[in-house]
Amino acid sequence: MSCNDTHKTRFVLEEKDMPTAWYNVQADMPEMPPYLDGAGEPARPEQLAAIFPPALIEQEMTKERYIDIPGAVLDILRTFRPSPLTRARMFEQALGLPDNVKIYYKYEGINASGSHKANSAIPQAYYNKQAGITKLTTETGAGQWGSALSMAGSQLGMDIEVFMVGVSYDQKPYRRIFMENYGAKVHRSPTNLTNVGRAVLETDPDTPGTLGLAISEAVEIAATNPDTNYSLGSVLNHVILHQTLIGQEAILQMELAEAEPDIVIGCCGGGSNFSGLAFPYYKRRLDGKSKARLLAAEPKSCPTLTGGEYRYDYGDEAKMTPQMMMYTLGHDFVPPGIHAGGLRYHGDSPLLSALVHSGDIEATAVYQTDCFKYALMFSRAEAMLPAPESSHAIAAAVQEARAAAEEGRDCTILFGLSGHGFFDLAAYDAYNQGKLQDFDFKTGTTR
Amino acid sequence: MSCNDTHKTRFVLEEKDMPTAWYNVQADMPEMPPYLDGAGEPARPEQLAAIFPPALIEQEMTKERYIDIPGAVLDILRTFRPSPLTRARMFEQALGLPDNVKIYYKYEGINASGSHKANSAIPQAYYNKQAGITKLTTETGAGQWGSALSMAGSQLGMDIEVFMVGVSYDQKPYRRIFMENYGAKVHRSPTNLTNVGRAVLETDPDTPGTLGLAISEAVEIAATNPDTNYSLGSVLNHVILHQTLIGQEAILQMELAEAEPDIVIGCCGGGSNFSGLAFPYYKRRLDGKSKARLLAAEPKSCPTLTGGEYRYDYGDEAKMTPQMMMYTLGHDFVPPGIHAGGLRYHGDSPLLSALVHSGDIEATAVYQTDCFKYALMFSRAEAMLPAPESSHAIAAAVQEARAAAEEGRDCTILFGLSGHGFFDLAAYDAYNQGKLQDFDFKTGTTR
Repeated sequence: MSCNDTHKTRFVLEEKDMPTAWYNVQADMPEMPPYLDGAGEPARPEQLAAIFPPALIEQEMTKERYIDIPGAVLDILRTFRPSPLTRARMFEQALGLPDNVKIYYKYEGINASGSHKANSAIPQAYYNKQAGITKLTTETGAGQWGSALSMAGSQLGMDIEVFMVGVSYDQKPYRRIFMENYGAKVHRSPTNLTNVGRAVLETDPDTPGTLGLAISEAVEIAATNPDTNYSLGSVLNHVILHQTLIGQEAILQMELAEAEPDIVIGCCGGGSNFSGLAFPYYKRRLDGKSKARLLAAEPKSCPTLTGGEYRYDYGDEAKMTPQMMMYTLGHDFVPPGIHAGGLRYHGDSPLLSALVHSGDIEATAVYQTDCFKYALMFSRAEAMLPAPESSHAIAAAVQEARAAAEEGRDCTILFGLSGHGFFDLAAYDAYNQGKLQDFDFKTGTTR
Repeated sequence: MSCNDTHKTRFVLEEKDMPTAWYNVQADMPEMPPYLDGAGEPARPEQLAAIFPPALIEQEMTKERYIDIPGAVLDILRTFRPSPLTRARMFEQALGLPDNVKIYYKYEGINASGSHKANSAIPQAYYNKQAGITKLTTETGAGQWGSALSMAGSQLGMDIEVFMVGVSYDQKPYRRIFMENYGAKVHRSPTNLTNVGRAVLETDPDTPGTLGLAISEAVEIAATNPDTNYSLGSVLNHVILHQTLIGQEAILQMELAEAEPDIVIGCCGGGSNFSGLAFPYYKRRLDGKSKARLLAAEPKSCPTLTGGEYRYDYGDEAKMTPQMMMYTLGHDFVPPGIHAGGLRYHGDSPLLSALVHSGDIEATAVYQTDCFKYALMFSRAEAMLPAPESSHAIAAAVQEARAAAEEGRDCTILFGLSGHGFFDLAAYDAYNQGKLQDFDFKTGTTR
């Protein structure tokens, strides 16, 4: 492999090339079904004001196509953006792909918190601070979102209180310490600090906790303290909005690479990483500049888009949030114990759900052992160790690349590598030792 | 803080701007005292051939000023280089520094292995493969070097066998798994695989191991197997040589920043990170383009340059290596148990030692609790969590910045942030819980 320009592997943008506005997909799709309040009526903005600041409620509802990013937010984002986009030449070789099947990836794990979650944590902390809020509560499962919000809190001078799902708290002490290093207060959820938590502990004192329950606790604290708001790392429209820098940058970088993707792939739990990469390509398709298929990759053990129902459901276990129209496995869904990665939320972004429902966006589900297998192959070729979450995109990319190779099709694949796996080595160890099994939610079978 | 060009924080070089030759400081300093063999005679190149390939022995001895980097090595280095150089604006604010005291840092933790060690691991694996070697042995303590060589082995198709200091093996399972993910074989040292290891285990079966002993085991395996060589992550001239990309890039980036450092600081164990940053500035000083002081920062509990003797000593505990003229605490030195970071090698690079001895380069020693304190302050301001090793440079930079501020001096500081601390969270937890003490080797006092 020589090193002239036609063989470039890394497509670097400068600070000044970072987009200065977020792309709002609501401008380019049909009217969304409204959120519903406890009475089943369309939720009014003021009902959200107990836990969200005005600017984020506005971003949740607006149909403006581009929303300018505040200068102070740009300043912080530019300390780690634009993020790199790389041609995965060594991974292509390891897979034995022909020359006309190419794989590119956009890597979001460069920032100190290690995943794309930082892209929304920083503006959320900023807008809350602007609104006079001094503390944010949130939940975290695998730990990426809690880490990102803790980092944002330390940089913007906000107190952060994280309700960490009990089983993760026990299994991932490094994630807890990492958040504490940024000054965050981390609780093992459920706690005795909330009505919701106390009620659960009373009937089931040894519960390992769930993500839906940790959300309920964080929302309860925010709703009952005037100086405290709640912050969510995925699902909601304003979170998706903040992630659209990923796709906007990717478009510029693929132009530098003189390549146009035939398919854009991202891993998908609540939808923030996938949508952040894919929605700007959805727009590009509307503009007639792209014909890319957009493919969300989710776990077979928690297959919201491919195995859930499209209906109204709550965002949390205790039904404290509004109901949203989305693909859901039910707000009391708990993924099986053998599921090792993240992406375990029961629902999905309403925006993404609507675009999947309309057929504009595709979804696929992959087995976790395939994810770990291709994550390790990727890591040995390209060096970076993917988060188990991100590896769902890799497994789907391999599937697409091999299909194209078999059919003799030209195919340019772009996938999102949403974060690194440095805090997930226990799961890799379990895989290396042959201890991981696969579960298919739709068929109820284990293999 | 606004975002125009005069307020740029990140100084990005493109792939094409990466230097294509290493800088060899031996061209610009007096004749080095020779390595000595077991008989006390100057070691001949062929004596090194049992464990090193010809190209690296040549690099160990040559006085050529610039050594071209092979194209295949450039191709891999360019997947993660040039590394970023950043103005630490938020850290400056957190320290309350005046406008005329500025701090820049060059960050080497972006690559997948997480530290500067990758810069030498890749060429070492390459030259060994070129020489027909199929396996490399090495030792690792804190784990950065073992991780880097494991990554290089996976990318270049070499088997890697790592002797990991027993106590680290027990305390850092994530490091072990991380190396295994790249396909490396990791042993808890001492082992029953070597004469050296068996002898120690016979008299002391519960030994926690030492770095010097792990080196001896790795050297023994390499010396007794023709298809196997040994690879060292610091100290030797060719390792220092490979690290000089750091300083060469930093010079270009500081020019982009329109700033010239008054002082260049790096953490220092065996000397590879510090020398890689500082030696190109030593050259720049000889060329009359810089007046920078060059300052190596080491632990007070293991203060080789500031507390050791400048004399001949062995590189390993079992005296299997040649003797080298260097600052040393004695080849049987073991750092105290309360020392939490890396930088625990008993000796120091002969090249760096000579330049410290001649007064061209300065050294200082810092307490570990100061390192953790300023590492956390840095992390909360700049977001990235430093490795405990790297934090020695931060503590020294703070000292210099505050002295300049107090004296009202203009001062531009450049320090090397050699790697991230994502695998070192147990040490941070110990610090957060007030469990870390300081030890001063020179006075023998604990605080």
